[in-house]
Amino acid sequence: MNGNGIERVGRIQLRQFDFEKSVDYYTNIIGLDITGRDENRVYLKAWDEWDHHSVILEKSDSAGMDHIAFKVTNNDALERLEHRIEQFGCTVHRVSNRTRIGEGEAIRFIIPTGHTFELYNEIEYVGVPTGRLNPHPWPDGLRGISPHRLDHALLSGDDVKTTTRFFTEALGFVQTEKVISIDGEELIASFLSTSMTGHDVAFIKGPDAKLHHVGFYLDNWYEVLKASDILSRNEVEIEVTPTRHGITRGETIYFYDPSGNRNEVYTGGYAVYSDFPTITWTEDKIGTGIFYHRRQLNETFSSVFS
Amino acid sequence: MNGNGIERVGRIQLRQFDFEKSVDYYTNIIGLDITGRDENRVYLKAWDEWDHHSVILEKSDSAGMDHIAFKVTNNDALERLEHRIEQFGCTVHRVSNRTRIGEGEAIRFIIPTGHTFELYNEIEYVGVPTGRLNPHPWPDGLRGISPHRLDHALLSGDDVKTTTRFFTEALGFVQTEKVISIDGEELIASFLSTSMTGHDVAFIKGPDAKLHHVGFYLDNWYEVLKASDILSRNEVEIEVTPTRHGITRGETIYFYDPSGNRNEVYTGGYAVYSDFPTITWTEDKIGTGIFYHRRQLNETFSSVFS
Amino acid sequence: MNGNGIERVGRIQLRQFDFEKSVDYYTNIIGLDITGRDENRVYLKAWDEWDHHSVILEKSDSAGMDHIAFKVTNNDALERLEHRIEQFGCTVHRVSNRTRIGEGEAIRFIIPTGHTFELYNEIEYVGVPTGRLNPHPWPDGLRGISPHRLDHALLSGDDVKTTTRFFTEALGFVQTEKVISIDGEELIASFLSTSMTGHDVAFIKGPDAKLHHVGFYLDNWYEVLKASDILSRNEVEIEVTPTRHGITRGETIYFYDPSGNRNEVYTGGYAVYSDFPTITWTEDKIGTGIFYHRRQLNETFSSVFS
Amino acid sequence: MNGNGIERVGRIQLRQFDFEKSVDYYTNIIGLDITGRDENRVYLKAWDEWDHHSVILEKSDSAGMDHIAFKVTNNDALERLEHRIEQFGCTVHRVSNRTRIGEGEAIRFIIPTGHTFELYNEIEYVGVPTGRLNPHPWPDGLRGISPHRLDHALLSGDDVKTTTRFFTEALGFVQTEKVISIDGEELIASFLSTSMTGHDVAFIKGPDAKLHHVGFYLDNWYEVLKASDILSRNEVEIEVTPTRHGITRGETIYFYDPSGNRNEVYTGGYAVYSDFPTITWTEDKIGTGIFYHRRQLNETFSSVFS
Repeated sequence: MNGNGIERVGRIQLRQFDFEKSVDYYTNIIGLDITGRDENRVYLKAWDEWDHHSVILEKSDSAGMDHIAFKVTNNDALERLEHRIEQFGCTVHRVSNRTRIGEGEAIRFIIPTGHTFELYNEIEYVGVPTGRLNPHPWPDGLRGISPHRLDHALLSGDDVKTTTRFFTEALGFVQTEKVISIDGEELIASFLSTSMTGHDVAFIKGPDAKLHHVGFYLDNWYEVLKASDILSRNEVEIEVTPTRHGITRGETIYFYDPSGNRNEVYTGGYAVYSDFPTITWTEDKIGTGIFYHRRQLNETFSSVFS
Repeated sequence: MNGNGIERVGRIQLRQFDFEKSVDYYTNIIGLDITGRDENRVYLKAWDEWDHHSVILEKSDSAGMDHIAFKVTNNDALERLEHRIEQFGCTVHRVSNRTRIGEGEAIRFIIPTGHTFELYNEIEYVGVPTGRLNPHPWPDGLRGISPHRLDHALLSGDDVKTTTRFFTEALGFVQTEKVISIDGEELIASFLSTSMTGHDVAFIKGPDAKLHHVGFYLDNWYEVLKASDILSRNEVEIEVTPTRHGITRGETIYFYDPSGNRNEVYTGGYAVYSDFPTITWTEDKIGTGIFYHRRQLNETFSSVFS
Repeated sequence: MNGNGIERVGRIQLRQFDFEKSVDYYTNIIGLDITGRDENRVYLKAWDEWDHHSVILEKSDSAGMDHIAFKVTNNDALERLEHRIEQFGCTVHRVSNRTRIGEGEAIRFIIPTGHTFELYNEIEYVGVPTGRLNPHPWPDGLRGISPHRLDHALLSGDDVKTTTRFFTEALGFVQTEKVISIDGEELIASFLSTSMTGHDVAFIKGPDAKLHHVGFYLDNWYEVLKASDILSRNEVEIEVTPTRHGITRGETIYFYDPSGNRNEVYTGGYAVYSDFPTITWTEDKIGTGIFYHRRQLNETFSSVFS
Repeated sequence: MNGNGIERVGRIQLRQFDFEKSVDYYTNIIGLDITGRDENRVYLKAWDEWDHHSVILEKSDSAGMDHIAFKVTNNDALERLEHRIEQFGCTVHRVSNRTRIGEGEAIRFIIPTGHTFELYNEIEYVGVPTGRLNPHPWPDGLRGISPHRLDHALLSGDDVKTTTRFFTEALGFVQTEKVISIDGEELIASFLSTSMTGHDVAFIKGPDAKLHHVGFYLDNWYEVLKASDILSRNEVEIEVTPTRHGITRGETIYFYDPSGNRNEVYTGGYAVYSDFPTITWTEDKIGTGIFYHRRQLNETFSSVFS
């Protein structure tokens, strides 16, 4: 399908000022597995991911996203994409092999909203606990919410229009949905897919270089209920309790990690192909688009970024 | 992601000897919408598909699959793929524009198992009933099982090995799973994906040029229950009642259309990317692989093809 | 089991000032069936109820509950209960046969919170659309949310303590859960069951003689999602989107009928028997008790009654 | 509601010839908790039951049910029921206090099908792991299938008609459903409820004094899938994979304990009250009644008893 050579959101590095509590949260409540540690970082993966890590927690004085990285199909794709990114006008830096545990070489660049992105092909293979020979459908001993995988991130910034153009023209993403002002002049939010999912990354008008949330994938609506129960039992504040998105049709909850980075667990949605007919939401319906049942935004959702 | 330029199973043409009953079955029990009719054919689409049709029912003296077709990303991809198919040694014919309602030009070729395949890019756009502007997540007035879309087909043939090589090497599919003989010498079944789903097409050792089943996609395990209830109410025989596959992890039922073509409705499964680590099943575990709960094949599943 | 001779909430009569819109709402959005009409009233039943009606809509200048009625096992039970109610100090009136369509004789009394209750045994039998001979599990042609049945009501009043004593001592209900003040002195809410469900009626501290909500029973958590989708599509405001109660463990949403009576659709919960060990919630945890995921009450939930 | 003074199936004692394996199975695969042991018996309860035990495993040379017991509301009910049982013509024996761990006095009698039943009121209270003060909806650390509670048993015998009369007339059960021969002369199966569930005990024509299955209650259809996955992972043979019953509408699977006693896990079903209109199935539809999707009995279901 999508021939852009970009597979998926492969990893996200999140800054944590309450480091020990955050490690406990991501392992015992979210239920990721630790696959590595170095001086300032802990590396984790969801059970259904086979690469070495998808989440890196980094000791820091503040919350936020250090960078987000997409895995590409092969080194040819990496080179081709590097060229296109430079053509678009972004400066690309090489990140050398083993800068972080398990990682090969990557390229690094800053997009128009000020976020740092990386593209990479090489990362150590770890595999899944169910194995590759006559596997069971899910492993014994799952802990906490235990999502299948890192799914997407929503980022904020001022120039959503140019950023969208960057992702669709330079990187070959599909714009699945967009929110526009009533007069059609302004692009308020943009949902971008490099796979069959509703969004691998999305952008919303807001402060530059900020993270709105990082989303993990669950299997079904009952898992969304179970995740909510687990969060509540552990006294993690749930910002948005179980509901459906209009945009992506997905079923969802939002909550925060101990340092204040917003998390989502998510399921459902439609199938995206390169001929997906972009869906438009007008600004007056943004409440319904984001929260289909409440049909209005809540205050924190529009104002809290990390 | 997968840069092969092939998007999805776009359509399947099924032969029907009990034509009026079959049209009634696919519209009122499966719940597809009729989008066209010509002398010998009725064209249908699932509600969540935007192209003109995904299923063509054809008047015939026998059951079976006339052909199955994949939609490609653009005409460049079509040309490139045509070249690779010929290089692999298959003869390619051009199918001219409007051979069937709503369709543009296609290429047609026979794969090593004797099945007729087509690749195409052009097909009339119809859209979905929820529309593209501030849409609801699902439309009013759904009938019957109302799957989201055509999902995959399982075909039978003798030379699964060469066919797999054709799909992986010439067409760039990912082999997600395979069943091999105990000694590892023989490839008994092969699951092939050009998207993020567990299989867009699959092959199992058996009579050449036959259809094992065509699968449609449902949203969740409760929809599988509802589909079973609808079939039973309509006295459609359910060959395999609700269960999970080991292979693909999907949740499923099997049943037959009025002419004896096997249908499946299906949900769940994992996310496939081009680096998906192929899963191997050994022949002694094929029962568990196909029907995870019963852990053995039933007689008809292994012997009935159309 | 519970030998008090009271079966269930049999009916509730709701005042409606926007009558035509309310009839449309209860038939097409909630999905009840109209079984009768007289000058000022429309009579409805849920598909899975066999008695003539469970909901009566009454033309009125205001919203609210006219009365709520429990069906008793037989006329002996009715007489015995009448005696106990009088012994408790409530005045009992006889409601004569055919005061309302399909109804036999009833007894009527006002409980300490000022609500009008009735007990009755006779009501016309209508049956369910699936019939009593080799039935299908659910009928064709369900409309809207289509709950199985009327489930319970939450009423407000000042003297929750005496009212609880009335229901447990005079009527033989089981108190399944209670909310008490921190010092244990005050009874803030009381959940009362005459069946196996978590509550057939409940009381919460608040204005006398008011209705907080009437609840209908759904089959599962996916039906709660579907109900929310249906309400949103029809632009019915959802006050509380899908969540779990701590109290009763049930899964729920709250919303309003066109005249402002709060509705709930509800599923899940535990099994109650006469030896059910009453669960206590302390006032500081009432937020978690009512909304297990949000862990706090919202403003309207505590202040809006009809 | 049902004023017969009988609450529920309180316990079942199952004979086990593979004792250690059976204890492991009921604790780790079914997921019951051990609450006591004596020389020949292990006592267990489901997490959501508050009495000392609901299942007793007994060392034996053969499989089968030693007895099944119903909990009654109080000692008055016990005396009243004893009298009615004797009036019906069954001999009643007193079982003395502490005959088994945690149990008070009981009465014991043999019903027309030859099964031993007990009625009791006193049993030690243990409570549930979520407690009675501000409880979470489910406990941490659930193992295996972890049903909520013992639900019902299906027993076989010759004289289903007299046994039904015994349960409805002497014990005050409601007959919810029945299967009759085409000519209406013979009662082939009878479903009997003393609560709001579709059946607390049921009888089917077959060998006297035998157990067909014992059923445990699950929360929903996804839990039925999870239970099936757990059984398959543990290589427990699943006789009937996930499906719906026509009778009771419940969702179900059947499988065997290590000694060959059939188990069911079960969810769903309708609400029963004393005015429930009995549903009739004719023998020609018994397949659909038992297995709504397959619409025919399988061989073992009709022939294997313990």
